[in-house]
Amino acid sequence: MNDSRLFALTPGEPAGIGPDLCLLLAREAQPHPLVAIASQALLAERAALLGLPIRLLAVGPGNWPQQPAPAGSLYVWDTPLAAPVECGKLNPTNAGYVLETLTRAGQGCLNGDFAGMITAPVHKGVINEGGITFSGHTEFLAELTSTPQVVMMLATRGLRVALVTTHLPLRQVADAITVERLQRVTRILHADLRDKFGIADPRILVCGLNPHAGEGGHLGHEEIDVIEPTLEGLRAEGMSLIGPLPADTLFTPKHLDHCDAVLAMYHDQGLPVLKFKGFGAAVNVTLGLPIVRTSVDHGTALDLAGTGRIDSGSLLVALETAYQMTGKR
Amino acid sequence: MNDSRLFALTPGEPAGIGPDLCLLLAREAQPHPLVAIASQALLAERAALLGLPIRLLAVGPGNWPQQPAPAGSLYVWDTPLAAPVECGKLNPTNAGYVLETLTRAGQGCLNGDFAGMITAPVHKGVINEGGITFSGHTEFLAELTSTPQVVMMLATRGLRVALVTTHLPLRQVADAITVERLQRVTRILHADLRDKFGIADPRILVCGLNPHAGEGGHLGHEEIDVIEPTLEGLRAEGMSLIGPLPADTLFTPKHLDHCDAVLAMYHDQGLPVLKFKGFGAAVNVTLGLPIVRTSVDHGTALDLAGTGRIDSGSLLVALETAYQMTGKR
Repeated sequence: MNDSRLFALTPGEPAGIGPDLCLLLAREAQPHPLVAIASQALLAERAALLGLPIRLLAVGPGNWPQQPAPAGSLYVWDTPLAAPVECGKLNPTNAGYVLETLTRAGQGCLNGDFAGMITAPVHKGVINEGGITFSGHTEFLAELTSTPQVVMMLATRGLRVALVTTHLPLRQVADAITVERLQRVTRILHADLRDKFGIADPRILVCGLNPHAGEGGHLGHEEIDVIEPTLEGLRAEGMSLIGPLPADTLFTPKHLDHCDAVLAMYHDQGLPVLKFKGFGAAVNVTLGLPIVRTSVDHGTALDLAGTGRIDSGSLLVALETAYQMTGKR
Repeated sequence: MNDSRLFALTPGEPAGIGPDLCLLLAREAQPHPLVAIASQALLAERAALLGLPIRLLAVGPGNWPQQPAPAGSLYVWDTPLAAPVECGKLNPTNAGYVLETLTRAGQGCLNGDFAGMITAPVHKGVINEGGITFSGHTEFLAELTSTPQVVMMLATRGLRVALVTTHLPLRQVADAITVERLQRVTRILHADLRDKFGIADPRILVCGLNPHAGEGGHLGHEEIDVIEPTLEGLRAEGMSLIGPLPADTLFTPKHLDHCDAVLAMYHDQGLPVLKFKGFGAAVNVTLGLPIVRTSVDHGTALDLAGTGRIDSGSLLVALETAYQMTGKR
């Protein structure tokens, strides 16, 4: 944590829509200073292609802006490409460039230059083709910040959903719901809602694992054997945890109107509702890091780069969420 | 299938809100004649308690109405209680009464008296306490109509979700997704969308089993081993099947705007979105039966019986859906 009010924005894959999103965003002024960590030449080229007259203002270490850029301008920390970029064409030669922008952003958050970082999508495949082992932003930042456990949370206006397990085959999910994992994830979620989102006593709705939350053991025993005793123990530490509740009726106003986040046991239990509700305006937040990091929830959309037919809704919510997470310090 | 335009309505558990819902409904005229199969004395008593001046018009075999009842009236096929009813108090003595109303409705559908049946909630526990083995409306009607396989579908305005597996512990789901089951369920869904909903060439979106629909085998193999080849075979029979798609992004306008139903692999993959979207106005449809049956998607709400503080939105959609399913013959 630090006192900076400067935010870092990484456009991610240079052949995708990330650069376009940053430029669209710069048409209006932000409430806080924001610096894009990217090739200035790439941004200038993309702006010309899109017909967007955005002024690019060079900044960097020792020369950080104190005020938000005016509408129509974007601060840029120039980070050179390894090869020229063609819209929609992946090029493994630029894998190192993409990771350099992430490293600059992450280290800037750690050293106090930045209040937080907002990431546009990268393309995992082309980074690996470029000879760099990379399984995603989240894992990269966990390693950069020496964080043993992170939690994936998606958010949209009015709903936050965190996950106990993430990218795991469905048949492995039940065994992965252990007391230890559930404790770790719940503690991180609770701590970050309190410390980063400024919610004094977060109320968390917890899904059961099985349909109808096991219906008293008739539809599975993990609620009785694992989830209920774990929640009981965490409540004794002072957490406000409601559940385990049946996932199919949890996402209704009766429950959601009185909660700060939902904790789902697995990916497809929690995210379909979140993305249905928040389509085009959802954000991915990595909890448990010593830094603030939010991300758009969509992909690189290679076919739309340079076309202007894109929606910056998710990036706007990612920015809003980052501001919110640092405003309560 | 038959030519009747008369519909049967079973109020279900007499101590719950089922009778109240039928009376609230009768304040306005229905587009088709509708007969409640219930104790007339119970309905009269509940109407007095609720202060609803509904006229109860006795009908029965040989004396079926040809026209909808006027607003403020309800046709009743009187079915005697075994014991008086107190709001909110379950009484196993009336278990036989509840099942008699279902039997009358189901047999009336089979013999052509009724075009379809709409069910209000029953209480499984008290029926079993009454000495009758009963695991739910769906199973009861499957047996009554000698139907080997039924499919559960929930619907709300603008979205239908059918399930390949239903009330199964999560750890058993992956093994239950077999070629045979997926074929059977998909064929029933396709046939009923065509024959009962009148959709000539139903477009069905099929979810993957694993997160990201397995991501090419990185997050599970059931898509490659089971789902894709099964869908391929069914497409060769002429079905329009899209998928397997990742469940978290399937429920977005890009996909939903061009489909007639979603087929989810399991309960908590498909129903949270459906109930989020359709809260208070969702309906449960049993596919695969030789009769039309729809149901409200809520429970008996014992604590609200006789209070008038209830919402008949789900029953209205259950009626609409039953009319829709029989209107295309």
